[in-house]
Amino acid sequence: MRGQRRPRRARARRRPAPLLSPATPPGAPLVIGLDLGGTKLLGLALDPDHAGSEPLAERKVPTPNGTGAVLDALADLAATLRDEVRDDTGRDVRSVGLGAPGLVDRAGTFRFGPNLPGVVGVALGAELGERLGLPVVVDNDATCAAWGEHERGAARGRNHSLLITLGTGIGAGMTIKGEILRGAYGFAGEPGHMVVDPAGPECPCGRRGCWERYASGTGMGWLAREAVRTGAAPADAGFVAHAGGRVGDVTGEHVAAAARSGDEAARAVLDVFADWLALGLANLVNLLDSEVIVIGGGVSSDADLYLDRTRARVRELALGGDRRTRVPIVGALLGERAGAVGAALLAALRT
Amino acid sequence: MRGQRRPRRARARRRPAPLLSPATPPGAPLVIGLDLGGTKLLGLALDPDHAGSEPLAERKVPTPNGTGAVLDALADLAATLRDEVRDDTGRDVRSVGLGAPGLVDRAGTFRFGPNLPGVVGVALGAELGERLGLPVVVDNDATCAAWGEHERGAARGRNHSLLITLGTGIGAGMTIKGEILRGAYGFAGEPGHMVVDPAGPECPCGRRGCWERYASGTGMGWLAREAVRTGAAPADAGFVAHAGGRVGDVTGEHVAAAARSGDEAARAVLDVFADWLALGLANLVNLLDSEVIVIGGGVSSDADLYLDRTRARVRELALGGDRRTRVPIVGALLGERAGAVGAALLAALRT
Repeated sequence: MRGQRRPRRARARRRPAPLLSPATPPGAPLVIGLDLGGTKLLGLALDPDHAGSEPLAERKVPTPNGTGAVLDALADLAATLRDEVRDDTGRDVRSVGLGAPGLVDRAGTFRFGPNLPGVVGVALGAELGERLGLPVVVDNDATCAAWGEHERGAARGRNHSLLITLGTGIGAGMTIKGEILRGAYGFAGEPGHMVVDPAGPECPCGRRGCWERYASGTGMGWLAREAVRTGAAPADAGFVAHAGGRVGDVTGEHVAAAARSGDEAARAVLDVFADWLALGLANLVNLLDSEVIVIGGGVSSDADLYLDRTRARVRELALGGDRRTRVPIVGALLGERAGAVGAALLAALRT
Repeated sequence: MRGQRRPRRARARRRPAPLLSPATPPGAPLVIGLDLGGTKLLGLALDPDHAGSEPLAERKVPTPNGTGAVLDALADLAATLRDEVRDDTGRDVRSVGLGAPGLVDRAGTFRFGPNLPGVVGVALGAELGERLGLPVVVDNDATCAAWGEHERGAARGRNHSLLITLGTGIGAGMTIKGEILRGAYGFAGEPGHMVVDPAGPECPCGRRGCWERYASGTGMGWLAREAVRTGAAPADAGFVAHAGGRVGDVTGEHVAAAARSGDEAARAVLDVFADWLALGLANLVNLLDSEVIVIGGGVSSDADLYLDRTRARVRELALGGDRRTRVPIVGALLGERAGAVGAALLAALRT
């Protein structure tokens, strides 16, 4: 045993040094993934040939205001990561993937995104590619996250997967036969604005009763405020106390925190939330016949408070009921990195 | 010119005779397509290498009662068509495709179908294959119709297509990258039970407010009866007269007929119908980003009464509005043959 081990350890020790020497050929090129959010930019460098999701370098910066500033910040972030991995590993970067919060067409132009109005119409891929001198692949952020979870996370090995991110709104990405569903123009995967009640509350998008009015983090807060307004919950419910006594300030976070403190009214709101989430998921399963549903996004950290009920309701609502194979609904594994990891791996796939 | 043409004409004239002679090797094998409906069975024989949708033989028989009788009728129909084309053309049949009205798993077993309860659990593919001594491919009927329209009809050349059939309920089939979307277990494509109003009317499926409660032929009749009940339409509306004066008997056909006679109340009902249809289509486009939507089924014969309004509403409701490429919404081309043509061509593809 000792005789077998020694040479392997010696090789492992020798490796790092030659890679830092300019005389030694570097390893296979790396990819960079960027996730453009409304408030922050997350960037990381990944080895596409390594099975894990651990980045070789990672950085987070605030999202600046203004189109030019956003492009500069993205380019700076990517350049910094490129320098960092070059210094650390001697390996070069082959391409960059970018996840953006909205509709991105196949040419890499940002077509629609209420959270980043200034970027609409900008050819993100071309602009960033020119600044960096590297190929840049752009896709919807939830699509990137879906690809990350498919390749390195909770949907690994599942050909037909559906990722739903629950945050301010609802994002989604799907794989069909192991490939990302992009659709005819690159705009597939927007169930957050699936209308599930045409007489429901107004959505900033202009419709009424969009699914994300109910089943997002924003929706959870709205359901709680509505419960007080309609008398379904008392005005002194625990979740109101968590919001400093102001009903109008109640958010999803307050509801989750109150439920954890044993607030019955908050638990009742979470049951309603679970049912709305299930309604939309069942609609999607009936259409897509997914093999697995992965729940990600900020609200998924409270999944223990609602997901069991959602699972039971989806079983009731999915067409064919027990005669249909039950779709597992599981938590995402990559956390806030999912979008950037997926963007990096999409870049590796397409360049 | 004349010198070049003559031999070609001569060849074309010589062909039919030898094909009928047993001494001559027959042409490439044909495929048979069967469409199993709640009231009728439609069967046809097709040359998969010929671009048209005109069958070489075609027959329609009533759907009998009872599982065994249905299987016998399907086998008889296929055998009759096989004999017919063998006599007519000397060509053999290579395989059979069957479209069935419900969830069909990948093994060809009928898993769920409210219109044919007796057939649930039956391994249609295996049973029919044994009776015929031929490979049998089974899929959902609307999926078959979508494949028919994709290969020989209105969605030809479109990689991302969505077929919606409007009849008693709503059926659907989709192509993604030019291939049928079957989903993980073969159950994809059931938007008829997409819940679009959880407080809506009860559906026989057990849910409330399924899309097909509003936007099918059945839905059109219901919308008219509701309009009278709520006072939105007068009790002596033209569509009530078309139903012999009995509000409870009003169907979609009465509404369409009354609208054609100039009944304002019927036109108002059709506007509401058009809006519900658009709501569901926009939900689907936001998810799938289809290149074309094909409307088929019995209710599509009245498309001139509602489809322009539906098109305008989908443009309003599709995420991204004018910044999104507009999806054309067109009528199906294959009529009642779509399912059988598609089933035959799916059999050709998979056998």
